[in-house]
Amino acid sequence: MAEENVVQGLADDARVLVANREWALALAALTALHPADLADLVLELDDEGQRELLDRLPTDISAQLFAYAQDDDELRELIRGVGFADLAAVLEEAEDDVAADVIQQLEPSEQQETLAALDRGDEVAELLQYNEETAGGLMTRGFVALPEETTVQEAIAYLRVVQPAAERAYYVYVLDDEERLTGVVSIRDLIVSAPGTRLDEITQRDFHAVTTGTDQEAAARILQRYNLMALPVVDHEGHLQGVMSADDLIDVLEEEATEDMYRMVGLTEDGEKVFSPVGQSVRRRLPWMLVNVITALVASLTVSLFDATLARATVLAAFMPMVAGQGGNAGTQTATIAVRSMALGDLHVSDLFRAVRKESLVGIANGAAIGVVGGLVSFAWERNTALSLVLGAALFLNIVAATLGGVLIPLGLKSIKVDPALAANIFVTTITDVMGFLFFLGLASLAIDQIA
Amino acid sequence: MAEENVVQGLADDARVLVANREWALALAALTALHPADLADLVLELDDEGQRELLDRLPTDISAQLFAYAQDDDELRELIRGVGFADLAAVLEEAEDDVAADVIQQLEPSEQQETLAALDRGDEVAELLQYNEETAGGLMTRGFVALPEETTVQEAIAYLRVVQPAAERAYYVYVLDDEERLTGVVSIRDLIVSAPGTRLDEITQRDFHAVTTGTDQEAAARILQRYNLMALPVVDHEGHLQGVMSADDLIDVLEEEATEDMYRMVGLTEDGEKVFSPVGQSVRRRLPWMLVNVITALVASLTVSLFDATLARATVLAAFMPMVAGQGGNAGTQTATIAVRSMALGDLHVSDLFRAVRKESLVGIANGAAIGVVGGLVSFAWERNTALSLVLGAALFLNIVAATLGGVLIPLGLKSIKVDPALAANIFVTTITDVMGFLFFLGLASLAIDQIA
Repeated sequence: MAEENVVQGLADDARVLVANREWALALAALTALHPADLADLVLELDDEGQRELLDRLPTDISAQLFAYAQDDDELRELIRGVGFADLAAVLEEAEDDVAADVIQQLEPSEQQETLAALDRGDEVAELLQYNEETAGGLMTRGFVALPEETTVQEAIAYLRVVQPAAERAYYVYVLDDEERLTGVVSIRDLIVSAPGTRLDEITQRDFHAVTTGTDQEAAARILQRYNLMALPVVDHEGHLQGVMSADDLIDVLEEEATEDMYRMVGLTEDGEKVFSPVGQSVRRRLPWMLVNVITALVASLTVSLFDATLARATVLAAFMPMVAGQGGNAGTQTATIAVRSMALGDLHVSDLFRAVRKESLVGIANGAAIGVVGGLVSFAWERNTALSLVLGAALFLNIVAATLGGVLIPLGLKSIKVDPALAANIFVTTITDVMGFLFFLGLASLAIDQIA
Repeated sequence: MAEENVVQGLADDARVLVANREWALALAALTALHPADLADLVLELDDEGQRELLDRLPTDISAQLFAYAQDDDELRELIRGVGFADLAAVLEEAEDDVAADVIQQLEPSEQQETLAALDRGDEVAELLQYNEETAGGLMTRGFVALPEETTVQEAIAYLRVVQPAAERAYYVYVLDDEERLTGVVSIRDLIVSAPGTRLDEITQRDFHAVTTGTDQEAAARILQRYNLMALPVVDHEGHLQGVMSADDLIDVLEEEATEDMYRMVGLTEDGEKVFSPVGQSVRRRLPWMLVNVITALVASLTVSLFDATLARATVLAAFMPMVAGQGGNAGTQTATIAVRSMALGDLHVSDLFRAVRKESLVGIANGAAIGVVGGLVSFAWERNTALSLVLGAALFLNIVAATLGGVLIPLGLKSIKVDPALAANIFVTTITDVMGFLFFLGLASLAIDQIA
């Protein structure tokens, strides 16, 4: 049993051996590691170390590393380490979908060269035609498919011969005379059925399938909803093209959650990691900050409308952050719930009316509570009744508006086919700033004689 | 093949039949639905409709609905619909882990009564002792375990007799004389091995396992990292207690992502959904807004320190939102990356120095860019050189401080064992408000003769 500390110890020993370039011992230790752990170790090395190590690893082990790379950056690092000259030999040992992911990272001319060098080049090339974010782009072609009239005994004999990888062997797909998918037989059904049974007697015809063009998130949600281990992917005529497995699904869902989180705060491009190079991080964070210079100017303009009011009572400036901040909280809380609920399939554009009704009530309740508390606290501090009333009213109005904005902005973005997460927080906080200043300074202008 | 529109059509027909109380036809349509779709349909009904329908559904189908409930709220709704009197009969048909999840929702006295009524009450009671958020709380006891000396032929014969549920039959767990887990054999290995082979000849001894007390997220990460379909759960002596499967893992990871997103914006308790009752939503959102009244007062106090400066140049008030807002963006962007990276295992407290060094550079680059742009834009508007220089400098300083705060606050929370996501955005924006006003109004005070 792999206790986590034993794994850690083995990996640490291997690290020391690699650092000392004791290759014979290092290779023995490294090949005992799980490829996921080995991939981590390789990716920690500097460029030269990666090259030296990958030069020495057997091609079948290098091929497995590609399967455990977590993103395109890591794939590219491994490609550099293996070197283009040896890449085709390594990919020969990888599964088709992994090979396609790797080749996707190359320049077009290198792609052609690599595909030409691969025995299964045509099959890999077919996978390359699909958009990366669809079921076609994620599926593997390593499935087991048999005709309907096959018997259980024949199917088992077939499996003994082809020895499919363990994680591909959960289902046998059943095809009709025209090679269309008609059903699914789980390997457990094979085991529990009498040897002479024909597959069409035990095949489950009421199964789920997606087409190659299905969006990866939609496909992942089907796998998740029906607790499936694998999902067949067919073309428009129903011919089986590949299979998406539950472990692909997990990566898709994690990636989509990260993407939503990042987009909400205006991080562009996908997959910034905490130790991405500084230049990359700047490019990913700066664009929305620049947009925000412009949106912040709208807030500045709003405040400048009330220059005369502020001149009479500079105390108003001290409470501006509270009005804006509480609106920002209420808005981003609601937007976060709305964006996540849309991602999980619990909120749709058609729910607009119901969502607005609910959020109005929540906004009124929270606005009233914070309005009263904010008003009382400011009274305790400034003893200015008019100021406290204006502040309480502005808090109330801004929280109601922000709560509504928090659900309307994501729904609005979705209805015009823009990702609802996209910079939701930046839009929401700009609007809550502007509205908050309008409410607060506008009301204060009306009551300025009582406040000043 | 279940095309999604066919499923939709069938579900819609069933909805109409249920609405018209045409029970005989409705039941025929409903029992043809996948339990996941049926659960959705049942949960849409009002209390009375749920009672009427669940009264008529066969107990084995009602039992499946519990397996597809997505959270505790939905479980409680189904419990009310089934009614306490019929609950034990339904749970008799459910898997142990599902029964335990249901019983967890009951009052202590009802729990005892239900457990006493169940044939497998003792086994379910054992599951109830584990914390809900551990591997013990998630595992199922529906696994297949056999002694080492069993032959492949005997194992297949055993599977034919016990007919385990399809999703539990991927692995056979191999036990030694003292019933300790010594290895795992995949069902595919059984099929491809000669009938007379003993399990201990083909068992994979280098497998991953967790203990009952392992945190659910840590267990989920192991399943994900090593692309496993199931993970055995053992006690401290290595006895197999249960199995966590990949579909549990998906739910755990989705739940953790939602929790992090929600906590970052100060949503307390887990699992608010977009259509949770208004009262619940208010209770979940209000607490941090109340905390924020206090934190906002610190910002107000900061501004009030510069009352005299503001009185001489009210134009300063117009640019306060830009300084605070840009700091807020920079801080929440960084905090989001930090929180997500910690959740995915890419950032640890020990990385503090490296993270601070990187974020300093990013903050300086973004701060310089936004400082220059903000300064230029304000100059185009106000033609006040001193104001633009002060604004640019304040933007620069606040973005640097906010970027550092965005990584230091989550790391700091983690180092004192508080969830790093907890209200990260609320802390970050408060600090960026306060710092921003200090920088901007502080510098403005020094240059007030040039600005006013």
